[in-house]
Amino acid sequence: MKTYIDCLPCFVRQVLDTAKRTGDDPALQKQLMKTAMLQLAELDYDKSPPEMAMEIHRTIRALTGGKDLYKEIKSWSNRTTMTMLENMHEKISNSPCKFETALRLAIAGNIIDFGAKSHVSENMIDEAVEEAMSVELDQKNISRLKEEISKADSILYILDNAGEIVFDRMLIEELPHEKVTAVVRGQAIINDVTMDDAQEIGLTDIVNVIDNGADAPGTVLSECSEDFRNIFEKADLIIAKGQGNFETMNTIDKNMFFLLKVKCPVVASSLNTPVGAMILAHQNDLSKQL
Amino acid sequence: MKTYIDCLPCFVRQVLDTAKRTGDDPALQKQLMKTAMLQLAELDYDKSPPEMAMEIHRTIRALTGGKDLYKEIKSWSNRTTMTMLENMHEKISNSPCKFETALRLAIAGNIIDFGAKSHVSENMIDEAVEEAMSVELDQKNISRLKEEISKADSILYILDNAGEIVFDRMLIEELPHEKVTAVVRGQAIINDVTMDDAQEIGLTDIVNVIDNGADAPGTVLSECSEDFRNIFEKADLIIAKGQGNFETMNTIDKNMFFLLKVKCPVVASSLNTPVGAMILAHQNDLSKQL
Repeated sequence: MKTYIDCLPCFVRQVLDTAKRTGDDPALQKQLMKTAMLQLAELDYDKSPPEMAMEIHRTIRALTGGKDLYKEIKSWSNRTTMTMLENMHEKISNSPCKFETALRLAIAGNIIDFGAKSHVSENMIDEAVEEAMSVELDQKNISRLKEEISKADSILYILDNAGEIVFDRMLIEELPHEKVTAVVRGQAIINDVTMDDAQEIGLTDIVNVIDNGADAPGTVLSECSEDFRNIFEKADLIIAKGQGNFETMNTIDKNMFFLLKVKCPVVASSLNTPVGAMILAHQNDLSKQL
Repeated sequence: MKTYIDCLPCFVRQVLDTAKRTGDDPALQKQLMKTAMLQLAELDYDKSPPEMAMEIHRTIRALTGGKDLYKEIKSWSNRTTMTMLENMHEKISNSPCKFETALRLAIAGNIIDFGAKSHVSENMIDEAVEEAMSVELDQKNISRLKEEISKADSILYILDNAGEIVFDRMLIEELPHEKVTAVVRGQAIINDVTMDDAQEIGLTDIVNVIDNGADAPGTVLSECSEDFRNIFEKADLIIAKGQGNFETMNTIDKNMFFLLKVKCPVVASSLNTPVGAMILAHQNDLSKQL
């Protein structure tokens, strides 16, 4: 998906959130904002929003000594969602359709996105979980995903954010572990998952976890390691979580399902759904617009 | 008030709203956005937000042939509020405190601000009016304003936005007309009032109306005509409506009351009130921060 001018207020809001996390130096914060404005004026809008964010956050890292500014947020997200794990495990085991319940929870978990939102509270996560249990989800797509999972020899599960990864863990627990490789980002960016998060919440004890070698808040294949690209190429089925993975891979022709909560009007318009919608969509069914 | 980095997402959102009003040329819209981002990276943040907006909208006018992009919005706002006039006149005449009721309505009318908001509906105006009737308002300040009005020989009522001007008309009707000069902007910017609006809603039939000779969405004295500056200097009492007038005049030492609805966190923080609050404040009582 290319970048629309409608994305710009959100980019600026996101950079402001990040700048505020650098500490108490107004001159540095202003420098970060001004530099980001210049970049946003000059970047190529044919690139996807996560590619733009990648460039901007590279500059922010260069100006702030490479500090992981979302470390506390990610740690809070992981801790908070881990306290929910037992309850959600219970929800799944008490459910007549364990796979569907785990799937719904995994999509709900995508609410934990500090790229698209300035603030995520425990209450917002609870509400997303509550809503996810009853909202309509395309039953044909659920059956199709189940079928593709059983047919595939290799499944790549491309993770998205810290905290959300606990919800992904629950869906991954319902998948044939030996087929699954989970993927984290190669470097810290916003609140996207890295290997630390996968270890912290115990995902590495369940399935093979690799990193993609890149620092985009999405999956920009040209930025990923050759190792990752080879694995991606050979995977029979790809499950991609979140807006960032959708925005960077929606035009890639693969057997790929996108699982996300729609958090902005631009993605909503691209998917022809309202903001807030829970999405389970196969790549083939998407409109082929950029 | 100076410009804070917190203002930037809102600036970009406002320019986006404006760019979308230029018509159906994505290349022009992108050019406007990119130019605004460059300006926002380079402007002097010691200037007030309306001064920044003035500079940006000058560029937009230069690139779009000087078209008044908010003409329809302003016309809708005037028409919509004029249909409420009879009802509101009734509210005032049935009230035991006519002046206070008209004052409350004038502050409520400040909701019609397409600078601070992308969208204002009739419903939002109705809600603001409803709320204005019951919300707490500092009785000491109301008495003080009444007293200053009776003491003053010359009162300058600095208007703010189209539509809102109908609410101002009702307050002005309660003032001694012969003392009052109402002030509109010198040129169209966003949905700010110009002489056309004052004529359209009949304010020019009630009091003397002048324009300030400037094109800022506020009152930037250095940009105003000498005539206006002289009248401003000599006025015994100034009633300034809205955030833009507050942001540009909050540090000017005059016998001046600000009447506004707080529409953003930056102004809320400056006034130490929540977003949404109705403000009636004398200049002397404001914190003297920039």
